[in-house]
Order: sequence, then C-alpha cells, then structure tokens
Amino acid sequence: MKGNSKVINMFQAPKGTKDWLPDEAERWQTVVDTVRKAFEKYGFRPMETPAFESFELLAAKGGTGDAVRDEIYNFKDKGGRELGLRFDLTVPMARVLANNANLPKPFKRYQIGKVWRYDNPQAGRFREFWQADVDTVGSSSPLSDAECVAALCEALEQLGFKEIKVRLNNRKLLQTLFLKAGVKESQMLEAFRSVDKMDKIGADGVKRELEDKKIGWKGIEEIIKLKGDVLEKIEDKYGAVDGLAELKEFLKYAKILGIDKYLEIDLSLVRGLEYYTGPVFEVMIGDAKLSCGGGGRYDKLIKILGGPDLPATGISIGLNRVVGLMEEKNMFKASPIKKVFVASVNDFVRGDAAKICQKLRKDGVIAETDLAERKLSRQMEYAAAIGAAYVIVVGPKELEKKCVKVRDMKSGKEKDVPLDKIAKEVL
Amino acid sequence: MKGNSKVINMFQAPKGTKDWLPDEAERWQTVVDTVRKAFEKYGFRPMETPAFESFELLAAKGGTGDAVRDEIYNFKDKGGRELGLRFDLTVPMARVLANNANLPKPFKRYQIGKVWRYDNPQAGRFREFWQADVDTVGSSSPLSDAECVAALCEALEQLGFKEIKVRLNNRKLLQTLFLKAGVKESQMLEAFRSVDKMDKIGADGVKRELEDKKIGWKGIEEIIKLKGDVLEKIEDKYGAVDGLAELKEFLKYAKILGIDKYLEIDLSLVRGLEYYTGPVFEVMIGDAKLSCGGGGRYDKLIKILGGPDLPATGISIGLNRVVGLMEEKNMFKASPIKKVFVASVNDFVRGDAAKICQKLRKDGVIAETDLAERKLSRQMEYAAAIGAAYVIVVGPKELEKKCVKVRDMKSGKEKDVPLDKIAKEVL
Repeated sequence: MKGNSKVINMFQAPKGTKDWLPDEAERWQTVVDTVRKAFEKYGFRPMETPAFESFELLAAKGGTGDAVRDEIYNFKDKGGRELGLRFDLTVPMARVLANNANLPKPFKRYQIGKVWRYDNPQAGRFREFWQADVDTVGSSSPLSDAECVAALCEALEQLGFKEIKVRLNNRKLLQTLFLKAGVKESQMLEAFRSVDKMDKIGADGVKRELEDKKIGWKGIEEIIKLKGDVLEKIEDKYGAVDGLAELKEFLKYAKILGIDKYLEIDLSLVRGLEYYTGPVFEVMIGDAKLSCGGGGRYDKLIKILGGPDLPATGISIGLNRVVGLMEEKNMFKASPIKKVFVASVNDFVRGDAAKICQKLRKDGVIAETDLAERKLSRQMEYAAAIGAAYVIVVGPKELEKKCVKVRDMKSGKEKDVPLDKIAKEVL
Repeated sequence: MKGNSKVINMFQAPKGTKDWLPDEAERWQTVVDTVRKAFEKYGFRPMETPAFESFELLAAKGGTGDAVRDEIYNFKDKGGRELGLRFDLTVPMARVLANNANLPKPFKRYQIGKVWRYDNPQAGRFREFWQADVDTVGSSSPLSDAECVAALCEALEQLGFKEIKVRLNNRKLLQTLFLKAGVKESQMLEAFRSVDKMDKIGADGVKRELEDKKIGWKGIEEIIKLKGDVLEKIEDKYGAVDGLAELKEFLKYAKILGIDKYLEIDLSLVRGLEYYTGPVFEVMIGDAKLSCGGGGRYDKLIKILGGPDLPATGISIGLNRVVGLMEEKNMFKASPIKKVFVASVNDFVRGDAAKICQKLRKDGVIAETDLAERKLSRQMEYAAAIGAAYVIVVGPKELEKKCVKVRDMKSGKEKDVPLDKIAKEVL
C-alpha cells in the first residue's frame, strides 16, 4: 500500500466505470443472451451504432434538452469535430432512421450496448453502463407500444423475475387534463418537469416548484393523485378526453399480449425526456420495486432531428440495475457449461495431454491442460479452482493401454476410458 | 440533396465510424458468437473493461511508445482527468491483472469489443473497429502461445476460412541474430522499427531507413531473407542461439495442436509494438492473404505497467477485416432462423392475430404481426420483405373452426392448422 495515489489511479478503472472479471462477465453474457433472445422472438432485429456521435446531434433542440453538455463526455477530435459519447441508444437510432429513409417500415430493432453519462457516481450508478432497447419506427398502432413493453417483460421473466411492475401513463391525456386544470400550454413543459421530480423531491417539493413557476398546484394534485379505477374516474369527470382512447387501446392490446397483470396506471408518471408524445412507461423490478428503465412513444423526434415524419415507440432497460439485483438476490444459477481439465502425471506425457486436450476441443468439449509445468497435485487444485466437472488423468501406464483415467470431480469416482471414447464420456 | 453540409454531417455516423443496420448486425452477431464459442472451447473466459482508460496508462512508456497521443481519442473529463478511448484490449487487460493480483494463474481470458484509433480512414480502415483477443497470463510455456494461435485458427475455421496463414517469428531469436549481424543493442529497437515497415516501404525503403540510422543493412538483409528450412539454416550458421529452442518448442506444440499446417517462419516479421519479448505472429486469411491480426508474447508489459512480474502471451484479430472478407466472398449462409408473420384478413380479427402471434412467441417462435393496419395483400408483401418462412393467415371463417391457414412461403402451399398446433407446424 506504499504506491503513490497517481499509480493507484492508473490501475483502477476510471471513475464511474468498472471492470467485468470472468465470473461476472460470464453472468453478464448470460443476461445479454437471454435478453437478446426474448427481443428476437418479438421480431426485433439487432443494430449497432458508434460509441460517439456528433455533439450537435446529441444536443439537438427538442430532443434531449440543453442540459446535455453538462451530462455527457464531449470532446473534439484532432480534426476539430465536436463529438460526444452516446448517452442513450434512442438518439443514435433516430439518426440512423433519418439517414436511411428507405429502410422497410415498420422498422423493429433492438440494441444492447454501453452508454456514457457524466453523472455523479453513487452506489449502483455508473458513468459507463449498459442499456438494452427495443424500438419500433413507422407504426402508430398502440399494439406496437404494447409489443415493446411485452418484449421487455418477457426478457425480465426469462431472467427469473417474478415481481415486475410497469407504471403507465399517457402524455396526451396528461396534457389534456393539465389544460383542464388551468395549466397554460406555454407552461406545460415546466409543469411536466416539476411533476417528474415527484420521486426525488416529494409532493411538497413539486408543489413549491410549481408555485415558484406560477403554476397552480391544486388542479395538478387532484389529477396526479387519482388512484383506483383511474380511467373510469377520468371519464366520469372529464368525458372522452384526448388521449383516453389511446390509453384504452393500449390496455386492450396489453391484455391480448398477457402483460396487463404488470400494469399500473399512474398519472404522476411523466418521464424526464421532452420528446415523448403519447404512452410513457416505467419498469420496476424485484420486491423493492427498483426502477430499471422505461420508455414511451416519441412521434416527433425523428423529424425534429431532420429526418422523415415517422411515428416511433420504444423502451429501454438499464442492465447494470438488472444484473445488480440478480446478484443481490442470488438469481444466477451455476453455469451449465461443463469444463474438463486434462492433467499430466509426469513431464513425459505433457505432449500426450496437450494432444488429448486438443482432440476434446475438436469434439466440442471445453478443455484445458496444464500450462505451468505443475506436479499432479497442483494440477488437481487448479482443476478444482476453475470448476472442472471432470479431470482426465494422463499417465504412462494408461497410455500403454490406450486409456486415460477420467475422474468425476463431483462424486470423486474414477474410471479408465479408452482414448477414443473420452468426449462421449464427458459430454 | 438540398440540405446544407452541417445537417448531412449530423446524420452520418462520425468520420471513420459506421452504423450496422440489421442485416449486417445479424451477420456480425453470428461472427461474434462463433468466435466466442471457439475461444471458450480452449478455456478462455470473457472479460470486459471500460471504453476509456486514464491517458497515463495508454501512454505508459515501454508499453506502446510515445506516438500514442497522436493516434488515440484523448480528452479531459469534467473533473480534469485525462482519459483516452482504448486503442487495444491488451493494455486494459494488463491493467486489470496489475490491479487484481489474486486472480488464479494461469489466467486465460478473451475479450471481444470495440477499440478506437485516430487513423486516417481509408477503404476498410476505421477509427472505430472491433477486436477479438485471447490472452494467457502467468504461463511461460510455449504451449500457451500455441493455444492462443490455435484458438484463433479454430475461430477462423469455424467461420469458414480455408486459407489461413500464420507468419511466425521470435523476437529473442531475431535480436540474437541481429546482434551477430553487428546491430548494437542500443540500435535494436530502431532496427526492429525499420524492418517492421517492410510491407509498407519495401526492402529498398527499409535499407534506406537503416542506412540513415547508421545501422548496417547487409547483415540484416541476409537474416530476414532466409527462406526454406529456416531453422536448419540458422543452426548451421549460428549454432543453438538464444531463442531458437523456444521457437522449436513452440513448433512442437503447434504440431500437437494441429496448427503446424498454417505456420510459416518469417524472420522479417517484427510486429510494431515494442513490448513483445518472444514469439510474434501475424495472421493472414483468404486467397489474397489479407492480414487480419496478430500478437505475441509480452513477458514484461504487466510489470512495466506497475503490476506483478507475470509472463503473458496473446493474439488478436480485427473483426472488421474478417467480416469484410466474408461479405466479399459471400461466406455468410442464409440465416437459419425461421420467422413467422401472422396476417389478418380484415380489421375485425386483428386482436385474434395479435393473440395468436403472442402465443407463438411464448412457444419459442420468432413471430411478428401487422402494426400498420394494412390490408392483406400489403401484409403479404411485408412478410416476404422480412423473409418470413411462414405466414399464418387469420380469418373469421377459419377462426370459427378454431383454425388458421398456414402458408409455406417457399412452396406457396397452404393448409388449415388447428390453433393449438401452429407452433408445432412451423417449428
């Protein structure tokens, strides 16, 4: 511990980032594979975009707002271009759609990748983290909203989550109700911004903010606190207002897709981003109802970014949150992958061991052999440390009989197996 | 085409980078999965590191040399830390090993991910590109070198490459021979640097450079031009020089692993990086012998970066080159994934179609349904466009009989299938 702080700094992953060592990386890989497979079943196809984008795109007005400069990693390349690391996967996708007008519609894509935000790192919050997104571009149907939510719920189910809650609202409906409550159209965005802070600053905080902004709190409070049969209460009080039919249609499809059990209408849900135009979602998992992502419909974003006028909807999960909760709740099963270690009884059979090991690999077995010229007992320790299911012991006596000893590491039982039957024995 | 250049610029992927649209992204995914599976068979396990590292690490002396500042994306974060996007996967791995002294050795890891270099983008050269690396840390055995090469060759074989060539040299041997040829120890690095440019500037260029550096060309020329049975010729002329036994031992294990057929000893091979200490490799693929990667042993790097004194060896392929060649040679097979499209005969059965579609997904089928309220003929066009293997036609008459029509898109044949037998029919 005598090293100076500069040296220590150089060895650690940069602030707000982390390394994934093999045990953890393998679990992550399982999660990514599971999520990918769920998304693919719904007809979403993979897409990949660069880690950085032009700063101009990331900061585009009406997209993500002005604060973006403080919240991203931005820099100039050696040609003087202003760039920034992507902070989500939606804006790059919108750019791709704007740039490839001839892609067949509806365009359904998923993307799983890292994004970067210059947040203040806290427990469980990283500056580099993984998102998994599904989006459908070119469909106005609420079925496409419901499909995105269903694909995400299925991914979470496949990962083993029993407790899933999707908070649901509709920006159109909320805007209609806020207008009726006396919020002026020009104040709408500010009203949304304050209500969005409910979880962070509580009702009192929101009330204070709204009053500071000269926006009436009482009418808003009545709306966002509606519980129970919310739709009926709205209809009773306001009639068939704008946005209500859309919300109902979404619920109809959600029921068809079997995800209605996860839904909870919550009129206080706004979602921070300005670009949402219809349904908005927030996904909570585990008994602690940890928020792990969300999304919504953004029918204007692609046009705002200069592309064609295309409706779009999508949802995103933060995989760090998901994996973190899975680690905490011991939701990872032991790896089903069987590994084999090929040990040498002495130095004279190392070549044979390497040959047998290679043959096993060619037969589809995950196999390792000693690389450190260790004696047999140390090789057995290493085999146990890497979790080998079997150890193949290669010795001169067995080789004479064209055999090896195969040791089942779980039962401790050993038996002689002919050289050409080893793969069959361990697979 | 009337847009101003600023707008066009914002929509394109930044200079030197590219987007992967779904067709291409799916092919990439196959390649990554294949490579991963090959590496895993050899006992390599995944690891992941941040996209950026401290600049100090990336520029560490004795690692990658001084030129790094001109060749990477470096920037300061808002806390004034100097960072840089990783330009390879070796330096981050060396950092992780330096920072996690207790990892069991030998430590065998693979990493597949993007790296970034501020190169001048040319045809086929990107500033953002993918590398796939295997490395073994903590083993001095030439078997560990041979395993890395074998894992990579197996990945290439699995991808369908028949023509694989691995150029092979040994830095220790080369240094011994250069010393015997009169190169001074203090000039060694410069001699290596010039010889490394053989492919770019030709023998005449190398000769001129060496003469400018006051390093004798003739002795070097004799060595690097040795062809045929190189080992025998060296032994005849110089005896059992340093590095020769190591090279022979490598060849012994290469033979055991069945990769000797790919090897070609080439004394002109140096590999640019300063940190190699023993065997060096360069991998060429296709009939045009396109260089797609390489590697070697780097026994001092981890210590140079301040970690423990650990021998290490590894090899890396550039996936952009590999995929590019596969595209060019039509090596990608049609996707084996069967997709199903569920079509509605009219608007009244859309809900039923969505329900049937969802049931198919739950049964493991990749299924889509109409999201754009199109009439049947347009739905059929879309199904053909997405390459659906089957279309499930949902109509009121069939529904009454608890049936759907299943159309095989290849043969054009249709048949009625009961609702609870659709998945079985299409899987």
